[in-house]
This record gives sequence, C-alpha cells and structure tokens, in this order.
Amino acid sequence: VTAGYALGDIVAALAADRGNELGARLIGDAALRISRVGPLDTADPATLSFLANPRYRSRLEHTAAGGVIVQHELAEEAARGRSVISCDDPYRCFARLTQWWARQTRPAPPGGIHPSAVVDPLADVDATASIGPLAVVEAGARIGAGCVIGPHCCIGRDASIGEDSRLAAHVVVGSDCHIGARALLHSGVVIGADGFGFAPAAGAWEKIEQLGAVRIGDDVEIGANACVDRGALDDTVIEDGVKLDNLVQIAHNVRIGAHTAMAGSSGVAGSSVIGSHCMIGGAAVILGHLQIADGTTISAASVVMRSIRQPGTYSGIFPIDDNAAWEKNAATLRQLHSLRDRLRALERWQVGLLEKNTP
Amino acid sequence: VTAGYALGDIVAALAADRGNELGARLIGDAALRISRVGPLDTADPATLSFLANPRYRSRLEHTAAGGVIVQHELAEEAARGRSVISCDDPYRCFARLTQWWARQTRPAPPGGIHPSAVVDPLADVDATASIGPLAVVEAGARIGAGCVIGPHCCIGRDASIGEDSRLAAHVVVGSDCHIGARALLHSGVVIGADGFGFAPAAGAWEKIEQLGAVRIGDDVEIGANACVDRGALDDTVIEDGVKLDNLVQIAHNVRIGAHTAMAGSSGVAGSSVIGSHCMIGGAAVILGHLQIADGTTISAASVVMRSIRQPGTYSGIFPIDDNAAWEKNAATLRQLHSLRDRLRALERWQVGLLEKNTP
Amino acid sequence: VTAGYALGDIVAALAADRGNELGARLIGDAALRISRVGPLDTADPATLSFLANPRYRSRLEHTAAGGVIVQHELAEEAARGRSVISCDDPYRCFARLTQWWARQTRPAPPGGIHPSAVVDPLADVDATASIGPLAVVEAGARIGAGCVIGPHCCIGRDASIGEDSRLAAHVVVGSDCHIGARALLHSGVVIGADGFGFAPAAGAWEKIEQLGAVRIGDDVEIGANACVDRGALDDTVIEDGVKLDNLVQIAHNVRIGAHTAMAGSSGVAGSSVIGSHCMIGGAAVILGHLQIADGTTISAASVVMRSIRQPGTYSGIFPIDDNAAWEKNAATLRQLHSLRDRLRALERWQVGLLEKNTP
Repeated sequence: VTAGYALGDIVAALAADRGNELGARLIGDAALRISRVGPLDTADPATLSFLANPRYRSRLEHTAAGGVIVQHELAEEAARGRSVISCDDPYRCFARLTQWWARQTRPAPPGGIHPSAVVDPLADVDATASIGPLAVVEAGARIGAGCVIGPHCCIGRDASIGEDSRLAAHVVVGSDCHIGARALLHSGVVIGADGFGFAPAAGAWEKIEQLGAVRIGDDVEIGANACVDRGALDDTVIEDGVKLDNLVQIAHNVRIGAHTAMAGSSGVAGSSVIGSHCMIGGAAVILGHLQIADGTTISAASVVMRSIRQPGTYSGIFPIDDNAAWEKNAATLRQLHSLRDRLRALERWQVGLLEKNTP
Repeated sequence: VTAGYALGDIVAALAADRGNELGARLIGDAALRISRVGPLDTADPATLSFLANPRYRSRLEHTAAGGVIVQHELAEEAARGRSVISCDDPYRCFARLTQWWARQTRPAPPGGIHPSAVVDPLADVDATASIGPLAVVEAGARIGAGCVIGPHCCIGRDASIGEDSRLAAHVVVGSDCHIGARALLHSGVVIGADGFGFAPAAGAWEKIEQLGAVRIGDDVEIGANACVDRGALDDTVIEDGVKLDNLVQIAHNVRIGAHTAMAGSSGVAGSSVIGSHCMIGGAAVILGHLQIADGTTISAASVVMRSIRQPGTYSGIFPIDDNAAWEKNAATLRQLHSLRDRLRALERWQVGLLEKNTP
Repeated sequence: VTAGYALGDIVAALAADRGNELGARLIGDAALRISRVGPLDTADPATLSFLANPRYRSRLEHTAAGGVIVQHELAEEAARGRSVISCDDPYRCFARLTQWWARQTRPAPPGGIHPSAVVDPLADVDATASIGPLAVVEAGARIGAGCVIGPHCCIGRDASIGEDSRLAAHVVVGSDCHIGARALLHSGVVIGADGFGFAPAAGAWEKIEQLGAVRIGDDVEIGANACVDRGALDDTVIEDGVKLDNLVQIAHNVRIGAHTAMAGSSGVAGSSVIGSHCMIGGAAVILGHLQIADGTTISAASVVMRSIRQPGTYSGIFPIDDNAAWEKNAATLRQLHSLRDRLRALERWQVGLLEKNTP
C-alpha cells in the first residue's frame, strides 16, 4: 500500500507532537523503512510494533519486528538486534503513532461543499469545512471550521457542529442539537431522536413531544448506529471526552460525565446521571433515574438497578455453563428463597438440639 | 428562542383541543407570559410546569414556576401565589401542552416534493405530502395526505404510508410494507429487511427468501435504528398504537398487540405473539414462538423463555453486586443443584434422627 | 398480486436447479395454479406448502393446501387428495422454492448507474452492476459484476464488493473494506467503522486510529443496522457463509468462522475468535479475547466470559419469574456464598455428631 517511512522521520514526528511530552527518542537505525504498524506476533522486519506491558517482555525475543516502541527501562534490552523508540508510555506513544500514520496514509477530504449536497442558504458553513456528497444541512445549522461532514449526513435546523469534528457517512444530528469540537461520529449515529415519553390515556398512549435537545461536549466519539435521544424538557448531556461504542442507547435526559467510556450495545435509561471516568462494559444496562458515582466500573452485560454511590467494580452476570447443568441450576434458583428457609429451619433445629444436650 | 405565549392563550388552546375532554381551566393571570415548559425544580416565573402526582405536592411550595398544571382537587392550594391550569389529568394535559408547544415553535415542513428527491413517476404521492431532500420513493409506493417524509428516506416499491405520518431523516420502508396513519418513525428505522431464515444445507445455509411484508397499524411510533423484519411467508404485524423505542428488534412473523410499549434495545424473536397493552422493559428479550398475554409487564433486561398466559409483572435479572461478592456468588450458583441435594440429605438425616429418638 | 404459476412449471424449475440435487418430482396435477407459498395451517387450494418434519405429518390431514412438498417416504400418504412435490429434503426444497418465487415476483433492478448517484471517476464499477439512486461510490472502489447497490449506499475509498452481491438501501462500506461474492447486506449495515480503541492518558482517552479494515468472505448475509468494525492493526474477518442478524455488533479484530450464524442483537467484543458452524442465540454476548470452538451453540441472551474449547450447547440465563418471587430469590442469591458456608457448617456438625455417637 505504501512504500513506507523512514524510522527516523517517524520518531521526529512523534517528538514534534505536543512538545514530545512522552519523551520519544530513537535508539537504532534512522534509515530503516517502516511499511506497517503491527502487533509483535505478526510483525516482519518492516513492521513498527510496541510493547505496552513489561510483563510480556519475553515476546521481544520472538518478534521479527524491525522497530519496537518500549518504555525507557526496557530500551537497552529491546534494542538488541533491532531499533527501538524509547518513551515514557509506550501505549500512548503507539496511539500517537497510529494518529500520525492515519494522517499520512488517508487522503484529506476535499474542501468545500460537494455540488450534490443540499445546504440551506440560511445554514452557516465555515469556509474551511468539507460537506460530503448528498449531505443535507438545514436552515440555521452551523458547521465549524475544519469540520468534515460525510456523505448522506443530515444536520437539522439550528443544530451546530464544533470545529474539527468529523462525521462519517450517514450521521443524523437533529434540530437544535449541539456537538462540540473534535467530535468523531460514526456512520448511522442518530443524535436527537425523540425520547420515549408518553402519558397513559385511557388504554392508549398520548405523545409527550420532546422539547429538549442534546448537548455534546468536546472530544467525544460515538460508534456506529448509536443513539442519543433529545430531552423531554431539558437537554440530554454528553460531557467532554466521552467515548460511546457502537449501538449504544442513551435515553432522554441522561447525563454522561466527562471521559466516561461505554462499550458496544450498552444503554442508559431515562434521566440517569453517570459520573465521570466511568467504564461501562458491553451490553450493560443502567436503568432510569439512577446515579452512578465517578470512577465506577460496570462489568459487561450487568444490569444496574439501583444507584451506585461508591466507586468500584460491579458485576451481575449469570455464569454460562453447559446447557444441562444450567437447566438444573436455573430451576433450583427459582426455589432459592425456600432453600434458605429450609436451611434456617435446620439451623434452628440444630440450636435446639445443642441446647437440649447442654447440661 | 421565543418571546413566549400568554397563559390565557395557552389555556384557550388546551380547552379547544378535543372538546376540552380534560376539563382545563385557568385560575390566575391570563396575561402571564410563558416562555418555557419545564419541570418544577428548574422552573422560573416564565415557566409553565405540571404536578402529575399529588404525592409530590410539597414541591409546589418550592417551585418558582409562574404557572402549574394540577388536578382540580389541588387547584386552590396550588393557586396561592401563582397561576394554575386546573384539569382532570395533569400528566395528559401536560402531554397536550407539549404537542401544542411543538406546533407553535417548530417550523412546518415545506409542502411538495424537494427537487433533489428521486420520486418514481409511478409513485402516488398526495399533493399535500412533503418529500424531503434526497429522499427516494420507488414505483408503486403511496404516500398519504399530510405525510412528512424526511431527508434521505427510502420508500420501497409498492410500500404505502398512511396519512399524516412523519418519517424523520434516514428511514427505510421496504417494498410492499404498509405503515398506517399518524405514524412517527425516527431516523435509522428499517422496516421490512429480510427475516433471518435459512435451511441447513450440508454444513452451510440455504437462504429462505422472505416473501411476507410488514403491516403497521395507526398511531405507531418507532425509535431510532429500530428494525421490524418482513415475514417469511405471512406478514409481521404491529398493531395500532404500539410504541417501540430505539434499537428495538422485531423479528419475522412477530405480532405486537395494540398499545404495547417496548423500551430501548429490547427484542422479540421470530413468530412470537405479544398481547396488547403490554410493557416490555429496556433490553428485555422475548424468545421465539411464544405467546405473551395482554397486559403483561416484563422488567428491563429480563429474558422470556416460555409463554406467559397470566398477565402480571415478570422479572429475571441477576442482581448486581461488587465484583468480588458477585464472583463468589456466581461460582456458587454453578453448584446450586448439588447444594440443594446436600440440603435434602441433611433433612433426611434429621428426619431419621428424629424418628430414632422418638420413643 | 400474481395470477400464479402452474405447479408443473414450478417443479420443472426446482428440478432444473443445481442438477435437481434434491430429487424433486411431481406427483399430481401439473396444471394446478399456485398463487402463494404458505404454511400448512393458513393454506388454501392455490397454496403450495411444505412439511419439513415428519413428526407433524398429522397436519397433512387438516390442510387445504393444493400442493405440499414432502420427503419421498411420505409422498404416497401426502398425495391423497392433493398434489405433492416429493424430494430428499423438503425444507431445503422449500428454501429453493422461495428463491425461485422471489425471482419471478420481484422486479429486476435496472442496470447501470442511476443519474443521481455520485460515482467517482476513479471508481471501477462493472458494466453489469446496478448503482441505485443517490448512492455514493468513492475513488478506487470496485463494484463487481452483477452487483446491486441500493439507494443511499456509500461505498468508501478503495473498498470492493464481490460479484452478484446485493446491498439494500442505506448500507455503508468503509474505505479499504472487502465484501465477497453473493453477499446480502441489509439496510443500515455499517461495515468498517472504527473499532473502540483508546489509550488511557492522564484521565482522558487518546484515540488509537484503527488502521485495519474488514474482510468479508463469500455468501455472507448481514442484517439491518448491524455493525462490523475495522481492525486496530490487522483486519476484522467474517468468513464464508456467515449469517448475522439485525443489530449484531462485531468489534475490531474479531474473526467469525465459516457458516456461523448469529441471531439478532448478539455481539462479540474485540479480538475474540468464533469457530465455524457455531450458532449464537439472540442478544448473546461474547466477551473479548476469547476462543469459541467450531460447532458451539450459545443460547440466547447468554454471556460467554471464558473460552469454550469443547463444542456443545451452553447457556446462562436468569430464569424469569413473577416479580415478587424473583425479588425474593434475587435477594437470596446475593447471600448464596454464605448459604453455602452455613450448609457446610451444618454438614461438619453432622459429621462430628455421627462420630461422637459411633461407639
């Protein structure tokens, strides 16, 4: 795909990034051609790889990688027989390498508005933004400097997208919703559909129009086909740095605290407030009107039914088993309360027996 | 956003709605300017709020709301120091207020077919319908009076959309599918993808083409990125008044009874028949070929593995706990059946002991 | 909808399909008009039906179907009073019937590129492919012979679609991703969104650009709004013949083995390797970095937390119960470990008692 880059140029780029705050420096062959970033186990001599965790240092012995990113402490050991990028935090350094690599290898989006896009004359599109083919930008919408709006996106009336945000193909941002700077919204994301709100009305449901919007902070990433509903009266809020994976469901009036990450297919029901720096596992479910403390971790596929006040790791998953064993245990589980009562009865009888036999 | 509306005009509008069946009447200042509908706790003097549940009447003392919707019994108490809309059912009255508010504040869609839309000459689009930019309407499709079809929607061959239905941006309605009147389909909804049907064929799968369609009744709302598959031979059916939240999955040949509501990320597997007036919690799963009685409530995240004949509330959720406690309990759960056997053995021994000691 | 087809013509078509490998032959009236393919219980004399499982042969007595597909052994019995298609495997024969029926009744897509589509001059679209209205095909993309690309699809830069693949409306295939031959991707499918990868960075998250792609084999079907993420460094791989239902989530660097089927709303977390010929139930969750043996079946809504080395059927579902019973059992479940300890204490006491009483 690419003829590759000289390792010296790569290290120079990493060192030039944010004042070389990770302390990257080269030990080895600056002229080495790197054609691929890859994991240690499938590396070849033109691969630049990384060792994030020193526990796995033995992998260095068996890799064919021509270059490896390691922490300073391991640099000397790792540099035997290959080139090394020594730094403070190899995993973050690797992350920045992928960012640099993507910038080199991915074509820049064309500037300007594609002629097939339908942009309302009353929309405010920055001259440096890119509006993809067949996108729709409605009246009053604002698209910030450096934004890339993909094909078939639809930016609703009076919505706004902060600078340098990227929307992949097929993203919908509803009217009045606000996306911060440097967002990355993947295909199929729907921001600002109606929250699920109805008043019971003589056996039917009366629609509660959802009059709030969605406010999303800076540096937020949202995965494919995920949904963030607009609020009923106030806004649904996603704070800075939040990362939501594919198919995540955020109901109306939820607040997700800064830098919280939620893995694929997880969801939060209406009006719950999730703290900052939480990690919510895939397919986990958080019921409505709850509060989750900052720094809480919820295991994958667990269901949160009450507020969590104390940070920690919480789980609730039925252990998988071969089907026959599961069937027996599951059937018994439905009698668990009576088993407890029978155990108590035995204990009481035991106590009585002990008392009787005590002179 | 808006200069607001006179409270007297609002009450007049509510009283004019459906013969004032909720008995709304004003007690207080008809000239009061209302600029926002909001909850009691964040209200200001220009906010119109509501008290749905008389148990929370103490909140009336602390709200700054200029106007409050209450039931007749509380009108006198609530009217001290503020204006009141007195009515039979404050929550429904609030719902209608949001509907009226949305009509006032949201611009009407432009009539007619946007020039960028691709409408087949053999489609039948009512003259009063609005077809948004870049929408596709295929041959034989019928779009009823007053419909609003959003940007990028795709209405398949011979599909039909009943009058006054609204489709947000990016809705797909497959060929031959029928949507009733006054539907509201949110962005990313897919109606009429193929059901998941294959015949085993020597280690591979042979496609069963899905020859049925989807029939959706009147007054149905479907949330963002939800899916309703077409039937294998007969149709998948969603009855009148059903409300489906975001990311709901309805498999082929399912029937959802009238006015049933399903919360986000829940799903129903093939050929199950859900009764009317059911409430299915978020992320709940209903397996295939089951029947669920009218009026059944399924708790969030519960899995229905057998038919439910008796209405009631049903639950099945592993309780969440701190991770260490969960691990111990989950491990023990896998031995539950043998614990029961050991308990039985103790009980039998106890019985034997008692018999032996009985003279 | 259709005036129907003569049963003799249908059988001739089935016999001409793949060298009549299912051995289809007609017993009865070749002139019978068939206007519908349908199940036995709702059949009328113009319906062609099928009996897949001989256990249900009694249904033959009550059906009004004019024609029935049965296995050879049942042909004589089934042919009393009606026409029969006798064959080696009635369910597969039915599957092929649906395929033939769909070919007859569904209009062929128009050839060529719709004038409203936006196809980059550097894309390579086979002359026999059909590109629907308002689709986007980016530079370097290759669309194979006989492909049908639906309305609003977006085929990214350098992506490729194998011959005779069909993409319904609103499918996104990201840059560099490869789809094999004869694929069927339903509306809302997103192939090649970024995997969920971030390095922790001083309380925030540093983006790991996802440099891999997605490779999908031949004969794969993917349901509506399902997602397959691109790999971090290597590719995410879906092997030949895999069938994914709606709203399935496949994370980065996952591999799904050939002919595995995953039902609706199930998901696989990053880097897990699922064997071939597996069946994954709806809403099941497979955590990351696991291996699942070929031929494994996972029950619906079960959570796989450890690798499965031995094929078999595995389950882990909290049994649903009426809410009051569930509450009691769930509360007790949180004390299960201590119940086990109390049971052990009783058993030890019992042993001590027995020893003491033994002379």
